[in-house]
Amino acid sequence: MSAESRITVGLLHPGEMGAAVGTTVVAGGMPCLWASAARSAATRARAREVGLEDAGTLEAVVRASRVILSVVPPHGAADLARAVAALGFRGLYVDANAVAPATAREMGRVVEAAGARFVDGGIIGPATRTRRGVTRVYLAGPGATEVAALFRAGPLEAVVLDAPPGAASALKMAYAGWNKGGQALLAAIRAFALAEGVDAALLAEWKISKPDLPASSERAIHDNARKAWRFVGEMDEIARSLAAVGLPPAFHEAAREIFARLAGYKDTTTSPTVEEAAAKLLGQPRPSTGRRDG
Amino acid sequence: MSAESRITVGLLHPGEMGAAVGTTVVAGGMPCLWASAARSAATRARAREVGLEDAGTLEAVVRASRVILSVVPPHGAADLARAVAALGFRGLYVDANAVAPATAREMGRVVEAAGARFVDGGIIGPATRTRRGVTRVYLAGPGATEVAALFRAGPLEAVVLDAPPGAASALKMAYAGWNKGGQALLAAIRAFALAEGVDAALLAEWKISKPDLPASSERAIHDNARKAWRFVGEMDEIARSLAAVGLPPAFHEAAREIFARLAGYKDTTTSPTVEEAAAKLLGQPRPSTGRRDG
Repeated sequence: MSAESRITVGLLHPGEMGAAVGTTVVAGGMPCLWASAARSAATRARAREVGLEDAGTLEAVVRASRVILSVVPPHGAADLARAVAALGFRGLYVDANAVAPATAREMGRVVEAAGARFVDGGIIGPATRTRRGVTRVYLAGPGATEVAALFRAGPLEAVVLDAPPGAASALKMAYAGWNKGGQALLAAIRAFALAEGVDAALLAEWKISKPDLPASSERAIHDNARKAWRFVGEMDEIARSLAAVGLPPAFHEAAREIFARLAGYKDTTTSPTVEEAAAKLLGQPRPSTGRRDG
Repeated sequence: MSAESRITVGLLHPGEMGAAVGTTVVAGGMPCLWASAARSAATRARAREVGLEDAGTLEAVVRASRVILSVVPPHGAADLARAVAALGFRGLYVDANAVAPATAREMGRVVEAAGARFVDGGIIGPATRTRRGVTRVYLAGPGATEVAALFRAGPLEAVVLDAPPGAASALKMAYAGWNKGGQALLAAIRAFALAEGVDAALLAEWKISKPDLPASSERAIHDNARKAWRFVGEMDEIARSLAAVGLPPAFHEAAREIFARLAGYKDTTTSPTVEEAAAKLLGQPRPSTGRRDG
């Protein structure tokens, strides 16, 4: 690889998904900076494992990078774009977060006003640092092909959409709108069945007519409880996305509430059982109604 | 079969699901009455096909029947129970409709006040008149075993829950809460993806990571559009059911809105395409945003 093709990339920040992105950038032979200021010991350890270079502060990352990749929880995405713009960034800013198309386009206006270019991104798949082919970074906007070049090797693949900024975010909202929205609904239904004393009967009926559902409803709770705190902002963005095209936002307002009630499982070491999670979802235990499973 | 074991059953009313119930009762050797007054030609034809006996009026059915089976759209269930109670019915009243547990228990109080007994029912599966084993009638309450005896032969099987009235309705709400609620969510997501110009990209991503979803999201629209008018009241009952145990009702408030927007497909002869249904879900067509599928 020639010196000219070595593009310095700033990665904000190396959480679980950020580490997957960083692994990919490093595998492609690019220097990848991060800012350790005010980050946790776990984040420092991940950055080291992945081979990132510590630039210290956000300001140092912004000064040294030609491309900045933003990989943060949705509720922090707009603040980060504003902070990078305020530091005078004039390179290529990629928002890869789970935000509404309108949120992405607004970030585009902010960074472009500061003299940078903007690419809209959306990541679909698990935060893998090893298996290529399971997770894709969708990219939209005039600079998308340049950004895709950073994903030539390593775990994450890039897919360029022939569409203006907002399309990659819309795709992410649609995908997560079913995936996480549906899992929240499944969790709510199990909690309802437990509250009404018909959970065993529901599982028996599902085994006959919908044989995947007993296991997938358990996974909806087990796999999500400890990550639920991160999904609250994402559900807000999806609700906003549907409302913007005249669809009911209430599916994802309900999903937001389900994940918010599970947010206390952040930083716990084991996943709750379906019964434990249902107790959180239902709030205070209700007096027994004397009902039993059939 | 001895004369004593021939129980006269009143079936209100032979719609599609009612005809499946009536087929089962007739297959079990029981006289099955219906009331043709004010019913449509299509309903008369179904009643004839199934072998029901026309008692003429609701009053005549109530007078002659030892068991009454109520199989109506959810929004009509409580009115029918009140009408039967007002006619002085003193037999066994079975509400087999998709209603909230609280709605079922309230109907129980109404018919018991008139001197009848009450069994809570919930039907899960398609309105088949032929294949036994695909559709089950769940029953709850002290008279459930007597009612189950009416389902010994024919397409519908009975399952008795060892639980008080309300449990069969709760099971139906849980089952339909996922099944129809999830299908409404899938339909909304396809409409969103079309509105944002990312439907082809969503289908391509689903083909890789969720290969069942392209077809199941089409079925969510094709199979439901012409029946959507019937699901509006059912979604109200599910929302009410979840709220009663402290869960968010908004999933099914949104699902109600989706089905309400499709209600105009009642009595149409062909199912709409995904694109046609999406246009109804999105309301008036929006001006093009210039976005295209990636």
